[in-house]
Amino acid sequence: MQTSLEEVLSQIHSVPSEYLYRAREHLDRLTKPIGSLGKLEEMAARFIAIQGRDVELPLKKGIFIFAADHGVTEEGVSAYPQEVTAQMVKNFLNGGAAINVLARHFDATTTVVDMGVNWDLKGLAGLRHNKIALGTGNIAKGPAMTRTQAEQALQTGIDLANEFAKKEFNLLGAGDMGIGNTTASAAILSVIGEQPVDSITGRGTGIDDPALKKKIETIKKAVELNNPDLDDPIDVLAKLGGFEIGGMAGLVLGAAANKIPVVVDGLISGAAAILAYEIAPSIRDYLFLSHKSQEPAHQVCFDILEMKPYFDLEMRLGEGTGAAIAMNLVEASVKIYKEMATFEGADISEKQG
Amino acid sequence: MQTSLEEVLSQIHSVPSEYLYRAREHLDRLTKPIGSLGKLEEMAARFIAIQGRDVELPLKKGIFIFAADHGVTEEGVSAYPQEVTAQMVKNFLNGGAAINVLARHFDATTTVVDMGVNWDLKGLAGLRHNKIALGTGNIAKGPAMTRTQAEQALQTGIDLANEFAKKEFNLLGAGDMGIGNTTASAAILSVIGEQPVDSITGRGTGIDDPALKKKIETIKKAVELNNPDLDDPIDVLAKLGGFEIGGMAGLVLGAAANKIPVVVDGLISGAAAILAYEIAPSIRDYLFLSHKSQEPAHQVCFDILEMKPYFDLEMRLGEGTGAAIAMNLVEASVKIYKEMATFEGADISEKQG
Repeated sequence: MQTSLEEVLSQIHSVPSEYLYRAREHLDRLTKPIGSLGKLEEMAARFIAIQGRDVELPLKKGIFIFAADHGVTEEGVSAYPQEVTAQMVKNFLNGGAAINVLARHFDATTTVVDMGVNWDLKGLAGLRHNKIALGTGNIAKGPAMTRTQAEQALQTGIDLANEFAKKEFNLLGAGDMGIGNTTASAAILSVIGEQPVDSITGRGTGIDDPALKKKIETIKKAVELNNPDLDDPIDVLAKLGGFEIGGMAGLVLGAAANKIPVVVDGLISGAAAILAYEIAPSIRDYLFLSHKSQEPAHQVCFDILEMKPYFDLEMRLGEGTGAAIAMNLVEASVKIYKEMATFEGADISEKQG
Repeated sequence: MQTSLEEVLSQIHSVPSEYLYRAREHLDRLTKPIGSLGKLEEMAARFIAIQGRDVELPLKKGIFIFAADHGVTEEGVSAYPQEVTAQMVKNFLNGGAAINVLARHFDATTTVVDMGVNWDLKGLAGLRHNKIALGTGNIAKGPAMTRTQAEQALQTGIDLANEFAKKEFNLLGAGDMGIGNTTASAAILSVIGEQPVDSITGRGTGIDDPALKKKIETIKKAVELNNPDLDDPIDVLAKLGGFEIGGMAGLVLGAAANKIPVVVDGLISGAAAILAYEIAPSIRDYLFLSHKSQEPAHQVCFDILEMKPYFDLEMRLGEGTGAAIAMNLVEASVKIYKEMATFEGADISEKQG
C-alpha cells in the first residue's frame, strides 16, 4: 500500500538530541583521544542517533540511480548527446559503469530506476520501470512537467524508500543519470538559493566557453519564463524539472520517514535534497553529504543546509559515485563505534590533568 | 639476506612518465567524462604506472604500525602518560584499536612492530620484536639515538618492505604509535622544512595552552642543542628521533625499491616520508599521501613534496587510520581502471564537437 506524501511528511521527525549526546558519550570512551577521528566520529554519532537502537553489521546498503532525460538538451547545453542517458542505463545494468565498480567494491546493491528516459527501455531486465514521460519538456520553452508528474516523481522515490526499509536496508544512497541535468539543477538552486545564474553555472560533463554561455542564457530564460514559486518546492520541481531529481527528493523524504540515513552525491542529488529540505526541513537530520562536486552550484546546497560535505576528491561524475564512497566511510564509522575497545575494557590510562 | 641501505638506494628509480601517460590514456577510454573521477583517476594512473604491469585484484594490502617511546615525554609535552604506548600495542594485538577496525573493514593485514617501546614486551604473541632501545633519549638533553641506531631503524623498515614484497603485497601503509611523537616529528620538520617552531607545533593528542607552550620551548631547545645537519637526513633522525619514524622512513624506501606504492598517514609518517625523500627523492613517485592531519606541521610535508593529501576528515589519531582509508580508495580506483567498460565496448556515444 502506498504512503501518501502527506502521511510521509507526518512521519518525519527530528532526531532527538539526547540520542546524539549518548552516542558521543560512547565514542568518548573508546581508546583514542577524544574527537581524534574527526568526521568519522560525527558520522557514527549521527548514524547511531538516527537509528536510536542497536545496529547490525554489516550495514545493508542500497544505491539508487535515478535516470531521466531533459528536453532542455535541445538548446545545446551539454557536451554529450541525449541518447547517452539510455546507453548509460544499459551500462549500469551490465555492471560496466563507475558506480557499478564502486558498489561492488563497497558491497552495496544498485537499483537503476527509469524515471523518464527518452528511449523505449521496456523489457530491459533488472531496470525499475517508473517512466513518467519520455523526458521533461524544454524548460527554455515551458515547464519541465506538470504538478501531477512532479508528485508522481516524489512518490516513486518514497515508494522505493518504503520498499527498501521493509527489506531492512539501513543506509541508502542517491545517484543520478541524465544528460542535461546540471542545467536543471543549477536552475532549481538559483531559484531556491536566490543566487545569480552566472556565478553558479558550471561545465557539467565538460562544455566549452560558447556552450557555457548558452547554458547560462538558457537557465536565465527558463527561470524567467516559468517563474516558479520560491515558497512551493513542488512548483519549482515541476517548472524546472528533472524526473530523476523528483525521484531522489522522494527517496530522501521516504528515508527520513523510515528513520534511515540517506547519503546524497553531487550537484543533482544535492538539488534533490534541497527540494526535500524545503518540503520537510527535518530531513536534514537524516542527510549525509558525501563529497563536494566540481560544479559551482553545489555550494548553494551546503549554504542552504549549513552543512559541509565530507570530502572533495575533485569528482563530477554523478551516478552516486561520491555517495558510494561516503556510505563505505559511514559503515567504517559505525564499525568503529561498535567494535573499538574502551579505555576501561582495554585497561589503558586516560588523559592526564 | 638483508639488503643494505646502499643497495636499496640503488634500486629506487623514478616511474617512467610514459607508463603514467599510457595509464591515463586507458582511463580516458572508460565510460565517464574525461577526468570526472578526479583524484580517483590520479590514484589509479599512479598505481598502474608504478606496477608497470597487470595487477591482480583484490590488492594485497598491508598496514604497519611502528611503535616506540620518546624520552622527551619527561618534559611534559603530551596529554597521555608514556605507558599508553605499550598499552596501545596490546590493544592493537587484541584488535581493539581504531586501526584494527578499519583494517578489518578494508581487508588489510596489520603488522605491529616494536621499534623501541619503553616496556618489556617480550613474549607478546603477534608482535614484531625489533626493539632498538627502551625509548629514545630526551632530545631536550641530548640526541634521540646514535647514528647506528638510526640506521638500524631504517633497516628494520627496509627489511619489512622486502619481506612483504616477497609475499606479493602490492600496497603498503605506514602508521605509528608513540606518546610524544608529534614533538619529535615537528622538530624534524622544523629543521628540514626550515620553518619556525612556533607556527608548526600542534596540540597532539590534546594538550592545553601551558603544555603547548612547554612543547614549543622543548622543540626549540632540542633543535638548538642537537644542531642536526640539515643536509644529512640520517643525522636529523638520530638527533631528533623517533625509532618508529626511522622504521617508517625505511618502509617507504623499501617499498619504492620494490616498486610498491606506499601510503602514509598523518604527521608522524609524513615526517618519516620526508626523511625518506631527503635520502632518495625518487620515493616521491611511490608515495600516496592519504589525509591532512589536524597537526599544523603536517603542512610542511605537503610543501616539501609539492603534493596534496587526498582528503581531510579532521583526523589526528595516527596508527595508520588515514592511510587505511586511502588504501581502500586506491584499491577502488584500481578496480575502476580494470573493471569499467570503455565507450567502444559499451557502444556509448562520445563527447560532441
